[in-house]
Amino acid sequence: MNRDSDNGQALLDPSQSASVLTQVAALVGSELRDVDEIFREELRSPRQCVSDVLQHVTRFQGKRLRPILVLVTADACGGVRHAHKVLGAVVEMIHMATLVHDDVLDDADTRRHVATVNSRWSNETSVLFGDYLFTHAFHLASSLETAHACRVIGRATNLVCEGELSQVHERGNLDLTEDEYLQIITGKTAELCAVSCYLGAHYAGMDETVSRSLEQYGRSLGIAFQIADDILDLMGNEAKTGKTLGSDIEKQKLTLPLIRLLDQSPPEQASAIRALLSHPEAATRRALQRYLDASDALEYADERARHFVNDARRHLACLPDSPARRLLDQIAEFSIRRKF
Amino acid sequence: MNRDSDNGQALLDPSQSASVLTQVAALVGSELRDVDEIFREELRSPRQCVSDVLQHVTRFQGKRLRPILVLVTADACGGVRHAHKVLGAVVEMIHMATLVHDDVLDDADTRRHVATVNSRWSNETSVLFGDYLFTHAFHLASSLETAHACRVIGRATNLVCEGELSQVHERGNLDLTEDEYLQIITGKTAELCAVSCYLGAHYAGMDETVSRSLEQYGRSLGIAFQIADDILDLMGNEAKTGKTLGSDIEKQKLTLPLIRLLDQSPPEQASAIRALLSHPEAATRRALQRYLDASDALEYADERARHFVNDARRHLACLPDSPARRLLDQIAEFSIRRKF
Repeated sequence: MNRDSDNGQALLDPSQSASVLTQVAALVGSELRDVDEIFREELRSPRQCVSDVLQHVTRFQGKRLRPILVLVTADACGGVRHAHKVLGAVVEMIHMATLVHDDVLDDADTRRHVATVNSRWSNETSVLFGDYLFTHAFHLASSLETAHACRVIGRATNLVCEGELSQVHERGNLDLTEDEYLQIITGKTAELCAVSCYLGAHYAGMDETVSRSLEQYGRSLGIAFQIADDILDLMGNEAKTGKTLGSDIEKQKLTLPLIRLLDQSPPEQASAIRALLSHPEAATRRALQRYLDASDALEYADERARHFVNDARRHLACLPDSPARRLLDQIAEFSIRRKF
Repeated sequence: MNRDSDNGQALLDPSQSASVLTQVAALVGSELRDVDEIFREELRSPRQCVSDVLQHVTRFQGKRLRPILVLVTADACGGVRHAHKVLGAVVEMIHMATLVHDDVLDDADTRRHVATVNSRWSNETSVLFGDYLFTHAFHLASSLETAHACRVIGRATNLVCEGELSQVHERGNLDLTEDEYLQIITGKTAELCAVSCYLGAHYAGMDETVSRSLEQYGRSLGIAFQIADDILDLMGNEAKTGKTLGSDIEKQKLTLPLIRLLDQSPPEQASAIRALLSHPEAATRRALQRYLDASDALEYADERARHFVNDARRHLACLPDSPARRLLDQIAEFSIRRKF
């Protein structure tokens, strides 16, 4: 249940990602470069020590799923305006703040094969640099004419933090339910995707009904994406994901496949699995693998992710057909097809 | 150079604090209770794990210097309005966020004789709870009609974070200059006092000239306050300050008295002092004490603090006489008279 580290590239099956990325570039490539420029401009600092960290951090920037959601939603809703570019930079900044703080929490050494801020500098620098990204995100959001964007972004980040706090609180809780899990990932991951799409629609002039529908598209996409990420964490390995494993098992974070496995196991087997999970060590994954292979846990988690993809796509029905709408459809579809 | 932990009470010489606190209570006591109510209301959470931390954290809330500055400035500028109460809660929330994160950075066990979040829960909870306070502060600020407050608060918190990042970066730099030191404490401590006074004036309807003058009052007061705090850290002890010593010497943070001492020492003595500072241990403080006693370093630091107090008071000249204006004058005066 680590937060995704990819922002888009790892979102996609490599064989299919090229086409989606090409379409993103064709539709909003120039706007995405403007987002990058606004991002860099806002964070520019006369203090060398700040510039150094910033320079480093942009090296593990991914493909920017959240700004892409703002821009493509905007395009699907009538067109990208200046506010969308500002908001794209804002949501990316918030996402990066949470990543930098996640790396402190996880004591991670690398992210996307690049040294984390805490390993390169210190935990102190990471905590403060994360704060720096948060406050600049809000400062940038306040450059828009009204306080509306600040309000919805403030509310979304409140929910992100609550989700994260709950996740830390539930570590080691081997009785976590599917509902509790969904509540956590909705806050931690899905809210920022939801607000990205909401803002894309709202600032393109859509009414509240359409904007809320797009928000729900983003939320369901984010949930599906995180379920897929959690399946990957259970199955993946460091060489492929490019981040220190620090897997959910190690951290005793229960994710959907394990919740299902425990739920479907006879009492004695469930006890044996809980015993494995409560003392995670190198052999734990292999031992779990046998239980997982004999169960429907992974299929079930896949199905649940698929359910949220379908829900996301349904929420696009309020929009007229367009290349951007079809791209949103594809992004939802491929969010659960990641292979690394 | 720890951030002050007191918010007002420790601000004052005990023999004189009663009178100032009585005046604060008489002038804005009821408004301050409204600030507390808005503070609690904004942070309320249905998640038990969040409420528990919040409940705990309010136990080390001090006397709330920053909201007091908002309210007393507002009163001196024509009267306290609803926006001032909201903004009082906002600046207190930001201050508390920085305290919670400071405790992670300093690995502190207690603050105001109460266990810190990191020692009671974990560093993870502290980092995330600090984020939770930051995002709620911005969310609350955005509840005001325009984005103006978000803008100035965003800018101020950017400077707070830059100051803190610089401070961490300069740890172990035994050649830090007075200018560099002043730049750090201006960001880290004074900007939030400055913005508190600015907002107090602005939202009472003052024009930009008066509001900026009050902002400078707050900034100079904050600088004086931090210099006094740093002198105290050098001389103080845990029993009195109620926080884990984690003194600046231990952290190799150079503060004004030591900068002056090094500057005024002949080369050989300066080398001996630097050698002491670069390997801080139990005996270091006593050894330094002898050098300090034989120098003008503490008097010099006192004088510099006094200079900033005078500067702060000068910036009140734009206001007509009133009980609130006289109280601002006294708060400046007593900011450097703390005895614990």
